[in-house]
Amino acid sequence: MSNNPVHTIIKTAPQDNVGIIPYPGGLAKGAFVSGDVILTEDIPMGHKVALQDMPNGTAVIRYGQVIGYTSMDITKGSWLNETNIIMPQPPELENIICKKHDSLPQESLSGYTFQGFRNASGTVGTKNILCISESVQCVAGIANYVTDKIRKELLPRYKNVDGVVAFDHSYGCGVAIDAPAAIIPIRTIKHIAQNPNFGEETMVIGLGCEKLRPERLLRDGEKGTKQSILYLQDESFSGFEEIVKGIMEMAELHLKKLDQRKRETCHASDLVVGMQCGGSDAFSGLTANPVAGFASDLIVRAGGTVMFSEVTEVRDAIHLLVPRAINENVAQALIDEMAWYDAYLAKGQADRSANTTPGNKHGGLSNIVEKALGSIAKSGTSPIADVVSPGEKIKTKGLNFAATPASDFVCGTLQLAAGMNVHVFMTGRGTPYGLSMVPVIKVSSNSKLSQRWHDLIDFDAGPVAFGEKTIEEMGWELFQLILDVASGTKKVATDKLGLYNDLVLFNPGPLT
Amino acid sequence: MSNNPVHTIIKTAPQDNVGIIPYPGGLAKGAFVSGDVILTEDIPMGHKVALQDMPNGTAVIRYGQVIGYTSMDITKGSWLNETNIIMPQPPELENIICKKHDSLPQESLSGYTFQGFRNASGTVGTKNILCISESVQCVAGIANYVTDKIRKELLPRYKNVDGVVAFDHSYGCGVAIDAPAAIIPIRTIKHIAQNPNFGEETMVIGLGCEKLRPERLLRDGEKGTKQSILYLQDESFSGFEEIVKGIMEMAELHLKKLDQRKRETCHASDLVVGMQCGGSDAFSGLTANPVAGFASDLIVRAGGTVMFSEVTEVRDAIHLLVPRAINENVAQALIDEMAWYDAYLAKGQADRSANTTPGNKHGGLSNIVEKALGSIAKSGTSPIADVVSPGEKIKTKGLNFAATPASDFVCGTLQLAAGMNVHVFMTGRGTPYGLSMVPVIKVSSNSKLSQRWHDLIDFDAGPVAFGEKTIEEMGWELFQLILDVASGTKKVATDKLGLYNDLVLFNPGPLT
Repeated sequence: MSNNPVHTIIKTAPQDNVGIIPYPGGLAKGAFVSGDVILTEDIPMGHKVALQDMPNGTAVIRYGQVIGYTSMDITKGSWLNETNIIMPQPPELENIICKKHDSLPQESLSGYTFQGFRNASGTVGTKNILCISESVQCVAGIANYVTDKIRKELLPRYKNVDGVVAFDHSYGCGVAIDAPAAIIPIRTIKHIAQNPNFGEETMVIGLGCEKLRPERLLRDGEKGTKQSILYLQDESFSGFEEIVKGIMEMAELHLKKLDQRKRETCHASDLVVGMQCGGSDAFSGLTANPVAGFASDLIVRAGGTVMFSEVTEVRDAIHLLVPRAINENVAQALIDEMAWYDAYLAKGQADRSANTTPGNKHGGLSNIVEKALGSIAKSGTSPIADVVSPGEKIKTKGLNFAATPASDFVCGTLQLAAGMNVHVFMTGRGTPYGLSMVPVIKVSSNSKLSQRWHDLIDFDAGPVAFGEKTIEEMGWELFQLILDVASGTKKVATDKLGLYNDLVLFNPGPLT
Repeated sequence: MSNNPVHTIIKTAPQDNVGIIPYPGGLAKGAFVSGDVILTEDIPMGHKVALQDMPNGTAVIRYGQVIGYTSMDITKGSWLNETNIIMPQPPELENIICKKHDSLPQESLSGYTFQGFRNASGTVGTKNILCISESVQCVAGIANYVTDKIRKELLPRYKNVDGVVAFDHSYGCGVAIDAPAAIIPIRTIKHIAQNPNFGEETMVIGLGCEKLRPERLLRDGEKGTKQSILYLQDESFSGFEEIVKGIMEMAELHLKKLDQRKRETCHASDLVVGMQCGGSDAFSGLTANPVAGFASDLIVRAGGTVMFSEVTEVRDAIHLLVPRAINENVAQALIDEMAWYDAYLAKGQADRSANTTPGNKHGGLSNIVEKALGSIAKSGTSPIADVVSPGEKIKTKGLNFAATPASDFVCGTLQLAAGMNVHVFMTGRGTPYGLSMVPVIKVSSNSKLSQRWHDLIDFDAGPVAFGEKTIEEMGWELFQLILDVASGTKKVATDKLGLYNDLVLFNPGPLT
């Protein structure tokens, strides 16, 4: 075996006692890896090899953090996974508050621009879309019928308008609308209608008898007019054909205004980028998320806004995030969001271990602690400027924590409500995830996926794994791609193919 | 004023001390109504007039039941509504159990048939549809893309197949899949795939890394084969085009089998009718629901299955339902479903008063007690043969209580899972509600609505209000319409127009 070559493994911090196998086919028993480690068994791609003997109860260290403890004696060169690692307790929330908030000094960036649609309120769109919002699911059948008709009959006449979307959702009636948690879905629906890509021309279709009054969905101070709200039960409509005609006429008023929007040069500070990951594997925290984190820092340095989210995927790394809060109030807000979610899960007889999917584990993520440490890499190193609760709009530039569930489609829905105009989505296992309202840049954590899904992935962060490119190089490339996508000069895969997920509301309140 | 004519009002039981105004324009102050009552103010259609002086604290009686107590002194001829009626406490669940379960003797009906698609398992479809189910929302974009492609490219070659539907839903990942309540959405998705209209040829698209394994969605005993489950992450697919090709090929296998299905004569005992009401007004309990209740009794007498649902809309009439249970176990199951829902609402800091919408109140329903008494009329008078929990399949013929939220689209989704093959939906205010999987017969409670929405309403129960037709006559007409729709010889409005709501799952468990 003297010819056995030395294979690369990836360590994320000097003190790590595990390494990650980066090879697409994994590594076979007997393979040498850097140092003096020989694999005692086959280990698949993305999985962890023990770099030292680890007797029962040894702390397993990755990202320089304890991700668990061995549940049996482990020999150097063995495979560590969810079957032989016991998950630690989550960080306590009580004593975590830290009064010293050292923002890292950041050099500001200037000269980076994109071509966007500036709105009267100051926000900037990256698309020009007519949004038909709904106060209640009851109207979805007609809203979708008319949206199709607008697409065929009206859109060809309004060349500057990119599309029309009906905002179907599950809320509006048959819900306990005065329950404390009802505010979350209600403000989500309201704020999605205000997404910068709709040019402040969203119209609302209501039924008439529903609990969620369409007037509640208007912007603060805006008056409900015959131009923005239409009720199907309006007695002036004699049947379906007249209802359709009424909606088409209202749509045309808004299309005329949208058609006057033109792209203009906007500074990168007008970006509002939502970062998310889904279908993660062990590479997500090594390649895609750190690259996204570097790009995130660039956007923040350029004066822009970035949000990261997914409470259950940051909960176990909260002790690393709280010291990055820009002041004590923001630190407390971060802790409060964690505590709210702990209580929400406990009420449903679940806890944070309900995160991590079979796919995560198959991809080498043993538990939520390991997943969280990789997940927060996408937040880069900037100070955390603000925290917004689920369904709220971002109000502060810089890096924001937008508290959301980790569910891809629920997180995306809440980031739309927060005001994002570009979405960056990291994946290791692969998902066709896409949104009709905002472009979604899909970043793969490994080249195996981006090669197989050549027409579904927009950006391959895989070259980082073998050192072919640095995180910094790829971070700049991703930043440039974000600007190009925001300008409309590059189209993302899901927009080329027309692949769009449903929006899914977060409703912790009861149905009736 | 000696020429003032006497106007009709509607009383639902001899002991009622209120009457309902049936006139489309309401009645003006000064109008005489039957007896010696003169209106002291204008009262709108569907609303209640006091038939006697009712000092503060008087029981308000409708349907022979107390629907509340006056909150001030009310003069004979005055308008009673939610502002001057205090809602009573709900019936206690503890002492309600009743050992005597007298089933009313019912004459069996024979000779009523329809033309249906009989399945190997014995169920009968009323449509012949290819269902593409999904294990997780992540795949919805591709599922919808392919469904469109199948509709255009494959369906024209399979003339006996009525359509193809993608079953988009919000579940599958980002959820606490081991939380106790998770069983509800999981079994709902599984059982919808088994709806009789899909001919036991449902296929499932999975992602690969999701928590809800597609294998869990198969019929008990069925093996996952290359013919019924396809994973997008399957490494044999190099990108989008190959995935699409894979799904198209799988779809064609199922279309070939579905295309061999032919309608045959089936007895009315093969009907599984889901009764629901939404957008109710004060007429719903006078016209549409009693007519549906009469038809329900006819179906039960013919050996068929009927379900009524909507826990919060029967909760206040539970003391009238428990004695109708066929035995003590069924009675206890009814009570258990009420208790479960009471606790569920309490956990979300809500109660049954969260039901009744602004539209209900505007239509004359003062509170949930009055609404519930009208709502249960759709269950007719048959004994309650069984109770099924949310997402479960019906297992007993006859009248079933299928426990569901009252939310129209959530109730409809759960009735699809229970196995319904015809849906009957009563409305007073009007809703375009429709489902793609099962025909929905829309019954209006008043002629004003059916005249205005001439192309959206299938059956007008309004003539009952003025005695132009009896409940019995109209019940027989509705029964016949149900058979015609089940046979495919009559198309319902939403199928003619293609108006379909989203399916919305009931998920009382937490997201992660």
